Amino acid sequence: MKLRRIKLFIAMSLDGYIADVDGNINFLNNLPQAEPDHTYENFIKEIDTVILGSTTYLQIINELSPNDYPYKNMTSYVLTSQKNLLAKEKVTFINQEVTSLISELKEQEGDDIWLVGGSSIINPLITADLIDDYYISIAPVLLGEGISLFTEKKQLTNLHLVRQVTLNSMIHTHYQK
Amino acid sequence: MKLRRIKLFIAMSLDGYIADVDGNINFLNNLPQAEPDHTYENFIKEIDTVILGSTTYLQIINELSPNDYPYKNMTSYVLTSQKNLLAKEKVTFINQEVTSLISELKEQEGDDIWLVGGSSIINPLITADLIDDYYISIAPVLLGEGISLFTEKKQLTNLHLVRQVTLNSMIHTHYQK
Repeated sequence: MKLRRIKLFIAMSLDGYIADVDGNINFLNNLPQAEPDHTYENFIKEIDTVILGSTTYLQIINELSPNDYPYKNMTSYVLTSQKNLLAKEKVTFINQEVTSLISELKEQEGDDIWLVGGSSIINPLITADLIDDYYISIAPVLLGEGISLFTEKKQLTNLHLVRQVTLNSMIHTHYQK
Repeated sequence: MKLRRIKLFIAMSLDGYIADVDGNINFLNNLPQAEPDHTYENFIKEIDTVILGSTTYLQIINELSPNDYPYKNMTSYVLTSQKNLLAKEKVTFINQEVTSLISELKEQEGDDIWLVGGSSIINPLITADLIDDYYISIAPVLLGEGISLFTEKKQLTNLHLVRQVTLNSMIHTHYQK
């Protein structure tokens, strides 16, 4: 059975923020877009499952992409204790720790798994060193304050830089554990 | 008169730390060194003045390079309220805010100015947006905890990515304000 990899694919400011204090990612909107950038399309080819926190899910379906759920061709798990959230295509709501969900999914057949966000999903997996691939795109911005990608953890992790490509002033990195 | 640029040249872990909790940079020692890397030599050519905090200065002369002061060919300013520190070649000890020292130096003839560190020197200048050039080398390490390069500030700063080169898994970036 193919090992399903747990992947992070996210943009952060040079000072390590993935969103501003209000949870918005407007700081990514003002970047130059002259060069064609297929980083996302290439990444998503190997993904068949996404994991989202409820705040991120609601932001996507209500604000970022209200008319077209972007992960409709994949299986979505939304981690939440809330009931009665609007379900989009192939979305499962579960009330479970993300680390335990990951363990279950890795036992099942399938392609790779993308941790879409937010921090409540990502941080426990960084801390537990359960992320196999870090695709981090570094934006040429000092945001100054907001939601940090990385929070404190006790253990040092050496990563292997697999690839890095710069497009439109964004440095797209790919590190493996 | 040539405008003297204020430059940061520093290595940080992918999660934004410039030193571990004890102020050490051992996390940089275990990186591969296969490719020749002249990033520092090229950077230093345009520098004739360095600014250091007293902790960084003492770390350099006592631990990192006790027999050969690395900035002996430049003018060093060590910001400290301490008296009787051991003076190396061309070192001036001053008890002054780094922002006010920078203003004075920019009025004088000279080449560019490097903020060697530590955070007590760097942070006020990042916060006040007084750094002209950020040369940040990103190490393939999640350090987990330590001394952060960036601390919170209220204002967003857009940077211009001038250059980035990857050598030995280090991503050497150069951003300008």
